[in-house]
Amino acid sequence: MNTYNKFHWKRILNRVISRLNFCVRKMSKGITPQSKDYSAWYTEVVTKASLADYGPVKGTMVVRPYGFSLWDNIKEIFDKMIKDTGHVNAYFPLFIPKSFLAKEAEHVEGFAKECAVVTHTRLKADDEHGIVVDPESKLEEEVIVRPTSETVIWAMYKKWIQSYRDLPLLINQWANVVRWEMRTRLFLRTTEFLWQEGHTAHATAKEAEEEARLILELYRQLAEDYLAMPVHTGMKSESEKFAGAECTYCIESLMGDKRALQAGTSHNLGQNFAKVFDVTFQTRDNKEKLVYATSWGVSTRLVGGVIMTHGDDKGLRLPPKIAPYQIVIVPIFRDEESQQAVKNYLDPILADLRNAGIRIHEDWRKETPGFKFNEWEMKGVPLRLEVGPKDVEKGKAVLVRRDNGEKQFVEKGEISKCVPGLLDEIQKSLFEQARTFREKNTHTVSSYDEFKKVIANQGGFIRCGWDGTGETEMAIKEETKATVRVIPFDENPKDLSCIYSGKPAKHEVIFAKAY
Amino acid sequence: MNTYNKFHWKRILNRVISRLNFCVRKMSKGITPQSKDYSAWYTEVVTKASLADYGPVKGTMVVRPYGFSLWDNIKEIFDKMIKDTGHVNAYFPLFIPKSFLAKEAEHVEGFAKECAVVTHTRLKADDEHGIVVDPESKLEEEVIVRPTSETVIWAMYKKWIQSYRDLPLLINQWANVVRWEMRTRLFLRTTEFLWQEGHTAHATAKEAEEEARLILELYRQLAEDYLAMPVHTGMKSESEKFAGAECTYCIESLMGDKRALQAGTSHNLGQNFAKVFDVTFQTRDNKEKLVYATSWGVSTRLVGGVIMTHGDDKGLRLPPKIAPYQIVIVPIFRDEESQQAVKNYLDPILADLRNAGIRIHEDWRKETPGFKFNEWEMKGVPLRLEVGPKDVEKGKAVLVRRDNGEKQFVEKGEISKCVPGLLDEIQKSLFEQARTFREKNTHTVSSYDEFKKVIANQGGFIRCGWDGTGETEMAIKEETKATVRVIPFDENPKDLSCIYSGKPAKHEVIFAKAY
Repeated sequence: MNTYNKFHWKRILNRVISRLNFCVRKMSKGITPQSKDYSAWYTEVVTKASLADYGPVKGTMVVRPYGFSLWDNIKEIFDKMIKDTGHVNAYFPLFIPKSFLAKEAEHVEGFAKECAVVTHTRLKADDEHGIVVDPESKLEEEVIVRPTSETVIWAMYKKWIQSYRDLPLLINQWANVVRWEMRTRLFLRTTEFLWQEGHTAHATAKEAEEEARLILELYRQLAEDYLAMPVHTGMKSESEKFAGAECTYCIESLMGDKRALQAGTSHNLGQNFAKVFDVTFQTRDNKEKLVYATSWGVSTRLVGGVIMTHGDDKGLRLPPKIAPYQIVIVPIFRDEESQQAVKNYLDPILADLRNAGIRIHEDWRKETPGFKFNEWEMKGVPLRLEVGPKDVEKGKAVLVRRDNGEKQFVEKGEISKCVPGLLDEIQKSLFEQARTFREKNTHTVSSYDEFKKVIANQGGFIRCGWDGTGETEMAIKEETKATVRVIPFDENPKDLSCIYSGKPAKHEVIFAKAY
Repeated sequence: MNTYNKFHWKRILNRVISRLNFCVRKMSKGITPQSKDYSAWYTEVVTKASLADYGPVKGTMVVRPYGFSLWDNIKEIFDKMIKDTGHVNAYFPLFIPKSFLAKEAEHVEGFAKECAVVTHTRLKADDEHGIVVDPESKLEEEVIVRPTSETVIWAMYKKWIQSYRDLPLLINQWANVVRWEMRTRLFLRTTEFLWQEGHTAHATAKEAEEEARLILELYRQLAEDYLAMPVHTGMKSESEKFAGAECTYCIESLMGDKRALQAGTSHNLGQNFAKVFDVTFQTRDNKEKLVYATSWGVSTRLVGGVIMTHGDDKGLRLPPKIAPYQIVIVPIFRDEESQQAVKNYLDPILADLRNAGIRIHEDWRKETPGFKFNEWEMKGVPLRLEVGPKDVEKGKAVLVRRDNGEKQFVEKGEISKCVPGLLDEIQKSLFEQARTFREKNTHTVSSYDEFKKVIANQGGFIRCGWDGTGETEMAIKEETKATVRVIPFDENPKDLSCIYSGKPAKHEVIFAKAY
């Protein structure tokens, strides 16, 4: 074989190998379809889109940079909302004395079974067993890693609140909390998660109620206007409310597998925590009165909600307002020369996009375009801009929408002008798709038999009458696993009867199986 | 007594009471002078400026809204710096398996004595003792609350790093960490603190070294250009370096009581963690190689540094670039009418200031001006704007600088124009004052006797020769409590001899007693 031939064959062989590699990669990027196994689909999206990973301690989560950027965007949006409504941030300790948690009876009941307990403060070397816990470092009183911070915060409020002048106190913190869960799923239920928890103190019951409702409205805006996730707003039933609350409000949404997700809760705590921590204030007319409280939180669970509201069999689909990158640039080139030509062509376009405040990622890696398309579809970037040497010649580029796959050729001069509008359209389209899906999967039923069939076969929300008793709720839960997700603000129980007992309905409620 | 007289006396009495109240308040706001008891001064400033409070578990800290806003500003500045240099944020778990911590011998040695250990995961009700730890929930392997995250992060890097294409990996996290300290002081040494920890992975030793040095330079910029806190940059001695590092770089500053504060550290970890977690990568030429690492952190300790660098007997003095409020508005009024007049006068001025991006606080409370002046001086707001009815008449206002107490009358139209410049001046003036203080308190000594006298009587930095041995360092520490704070980059050991042993100096170093 002469040199030419050797060279020729080598090139062909290299191409075949490269093609095979591409196919292998492509296949390895392929994920289980939602229809086949939703739960497997979810885990694969989380992993392959590099959103998160399990940590070494059971049930803990590593939020990877791409997932963290998504959470950070959500965080920034909500942080602005609460600051605009007069709230301030602070930081309270991770550790709570065991005795504090035990002060509010319902509260400890709600959290006792999932507490990480710190009992010692030192390790030491042991000849036989290596590094061991030093028994001499045992704490007199065990310390709880906060599952939520009401108790430690109200112990501080006791010091800070004396007079009506100190009220309202509108404090929030962004923090990690720990609930030792048996069954965990990334973002949805992990032993440790990130959240914000607001804790406010008020002079009157009315103000506390208004605060709890205001925050719920902010949660609704966050979910619908930014996460493009339609939610029902309303109240929780007694059995589903927060341990220690008078009343829990919530936003409740429907996931792609037709199960419900509680995405945020806002509690009117009444005077429960003020009582146990003895937090009183002097009123304007010199009387001593217990303080009224609220608390409210949303967590990294929202990321799970975004994945399951918008994701499809290609992976994530991210609403532009929270996407880490709103547009990904995939340049197509064969050699350094064409790469430079594409780069020169792109530079002014990207400068315009950046000036317009668009979050851009440029993917100049030496992978094939197909490989990159798959990867960025998996990662849910709302828009893709493809530019190759032919586009440069024609003065055009290709824009592809992630929400519906639509592809369009755009004149060079038009790109930076049309991108903001396209992003708005994608934001709206994702919300509309999700709302349509929810409407399609919201059922009205006329009998309990029908109720059971819908829950067992179709899933989704069932809107129906409920007699308001815990017994009915429990019976339905035991038989069908469906629970009262929310008593919606727009309920109309008049003329309805309870789907289970047949008695006149106290509430019109939304039932579903839930995460 | 007729009605007029009754009314008259009542007014006088009210005035006397109000004046007394003011005096009592003023007295209660007074703090221990620095010269009398620096430590008491520090604690009082932290408390009275509402920066922080101790939490219920020993040594834990509550960062109050004003203190948190200060920390948040520092955080935002540094977050931008690291993002601009290619770093991304992520989040790693709070919990580390005990066995992980034990993997790196020096590392566990460094942290074993101050670890919070989680041993159980459930509480239960007990008839005799109330709420107790459920012994049946004992963990098979104890879990450590992270004192720092090298081990858990390198366990993940093992999964994420395969090839040179995955490098460098430049990840940071903002998180809480726990070190069970015996002696705590708010911001400076607390059981739990907030910080950022960067953890990077590199293909070569050179890159890791460059990264560690780059971050140190960012720390220097953060300290000097934003916190107005002059620092020495350089290397730690063997005995002071991070447990598990090849080399620790640091920024070191001098506090108002002439003790040193280590304000930030950046470590070149070499291949230590890659070895114990077996993190290798495939090089371009298909070889298997261990990864090189750095880690680096600054914490809420920086807030302590700001307090002790700039504070005076009236309280805090905050550098404008990090101050929660850059200017506080103290309107002076007697009744609603004059209040409205002052408000109308102020509105356009404040609108201009807000447009210029100035952080403003308006204090419309019904306290006396004197009370407000004291409070905002305590809280260190860089500028104060006073406007009363007479100023309105004259078309003027009073501006008072917190850094030097200078008071000036400014024409209405000039206020918004001169404020940004004044803030710049204050920023520079605080830095210059601190630098002058440091120079004045940096000593050169010619004998060990003199060294001991300076340390015992004057404090401050001593710049001198050191033979580079641990024995010398230890001997000096035992006798004087002074340690090698830093081997400065600008050292010049030539012709120097060791202050203790008299041998030729290996390094010119900076000694001091430290926090």
